[in-house]
Amino acid sequence: MSLMVIGTVAFDSVKTPFGEADNVLGGSATYFSVSASYFTSVRLKAVIGEDFPDEHMKVFAKHKINTDGLQRLPGKTFSWKGSYGFDLNTATTLETNLNVLLDFNPKLSDEDRKAGFVFLANIDPSLQIEVIKQLDSPKLVALDSMNFWIENKKEELLKVIGMVDMVVVNESEARELTGTPSLVKAARQIQKMGPKTVIVKQGEYGAISLFGDEIFSAPAYPLEDVHDPTGAGDTFAGGVMGYLASRGVLTSDSLRQSMIVGSAMASYNVESFSLNRLTSLQFNDIVARYNEIKRLTSFDDLK
Amino acid sequence: MSLMVIGTVAFDSVKTPFGEADNVLGGSATYFSVSASYFTSVRLKAVIGEDFPDEHMKVFAKHKINTDGLQRLPGKTFSWKGSYGFDLNTATTLETNLNVLLDFNPKLSDEDRKAGFVFLANIDPSLQIEVIKQLDSPKLVALDSMNFWIENKKEELLKVIGMVDMVVVNESEARELTGTPSLVKAARQIQKMGPKTVIVKQGEYGAISLFGDEIFSAPAYPLEDVHDPTGAGDTFAGGVMGYLASRGVLTSDSLRQSMIVGSAMASYNVESFSLNRLTSLQFNDIVARYNEIKRLTSFDDLK
Repeated sequence: MSLMVIGTVAFDSVKTPFGEADNVLGGSATYFSVSASYFTSVRLKAVIGEDFPDEHMKVFAKHKINTDGLQRLPGKTFSWKGSYGFDLNTATTLETNLNVLLDFNPKLSDEDRKAGFVFLANIDPSLQIEVIKQLDSPKLVALDSMNFWIENKKEELLKVIGMVDMVVVNESEARELTGTPSLVKAARQIQKMGPKTVIVKQGEYGAISLFGDEIFSAPAYPLEDVHDPTGAGDTFAGGVMGYLASRGVLTSDSLRQSMIVGSAMASYNVESFSLNRLTSLQFNDIVARYNEIKRLTSFDDLK
Repeated sequence: MSLMVIGTVAFDSVKTPFGEADNVLGGSATYFSVSASYFTSVRLKAVIGEDFPDEHMKVFAKHKINTDGLQRLPGKTFSWKGSYGFDLNTATTLETNLNVLLDFNPKLSDEDRKAGFVFLANIDPSLQIEVIKQLDSPKLVALDSMNFWIENKKEELLKVIGMVDMVVVNESEARELTGTPSLVKAARQIQKMGPKTVIVKQGEYGAISLFGDEIFSAPAYPLEDVHDPTGAGDTFAGGVMGYLASRGVLTSDSLRQSMIVGSAMASYNVESFSLNRLTSLQFNDIVARYNEIKRLTSFDDLK
């Protein structure tokens, strides 16, 4: 089933203890769509400036991502500059230039409206609401958000959470959104706002999902070297939603598998800067890592 | 096979956001031995003062823990006072009174020397070395340690690590010991010091183990309410070693199972203060939680 993502396409400048990258391709919708493209056809809704080069467009083309909804506006592409310390856990934002993102107003085409699976990446919750209103009976709508919107647009954020089937957030965001230190309680409170499915990303520790009463825990694949964590969360979400769209249905079992797919995709992504590793994967690589995570978590019944 | 633990028996005073407990039974060897007692017979080597009450001795008796090696010395029992903040992740030590622990010099009896499985809980690495020297061809020796010894007795600590089969440490300790931010690299470096098996505890996220080249990831059981994390690491280690001793052999499979047993035991322990929950378990409770963790981590092959 087709998957549409609404989010950002960006130029990232990133510094980690292992090197740096200047003005490379980034953005939530970019990581998401490339990750999801390994599983299903993806429609990308985002905005870019006049400075967005053809070489980046070729990345989307290579992954057969539909860019009919990628608006090019006068001005510069959204850009972000950040750095990571020794433990790679949290990015320090050094610079954010919204640029053309300020004029982003996603209008859905007739084709867009019919998307079965929709992911609203981290953008202004008011825009997320506008997108949902234009949809024509989607099968599954999921959203991501961030602390900025929790702090500055909480009312709109709570409203849009009530309109979606699935929420994907970081654990710090789940705690901040609900004012609850217990992660399980926080996730259950988000469920009470509407969505049956809540995924809480835990960075290097993996992620947990709640599907109704059922909890699933997906580990992160233990890597010796993480070079750049930028985009890991969006890559994870792309794997989750891409796999679910390919199955066409959200069940307890397909959700569990999608979480492992997401973890596998994110583990590849952090092995190098920008989308360097993510764009060069073979499907066999993904299956191999999925199976490694299976082995990583397997144990016999108690004797 | 019989299991011996050398560590501390203490009076703990603990404050968490959910309440407080004054002068309750605690100590690494206490949590460890009660946890392990559900799986095998345990010999406890530790020291207590004249003030150690009969009611606490009854706890050991109830769990059929052999206390022949529990020395009672003139003076007061070791005591610790700490508090936990809202997130319950790290304890702030408010007071430590070593008392009789200063005179602890574990001499093994003939019976002690024959122990097949031995756990050296967090004590002075010089004492850990002395204990190992007295052992008569043990099957498996494991140790725990803490940042204090890394910072103040690193040479002795490295020496004793080279003498054991298994190391159980927190992730911050693994990083500090090796000066390596990557957890997998840190664990591999500890393996290079001698032990084939390294377990890294990750608190609320669970634990990972390295057994030769093989990595296993055990999640923490997701609890809605954690009341007191004191002793969680020792309870986990007690479950791991108790189960391994009951099986009589350390293999990739028994280690994986033992990690889940440890996780189940730790999850019960943090549900209440001191050993309140840990001492009232039925074996069926443990099996039930083990099976819940199995369900928590199960997923189908990729389709």
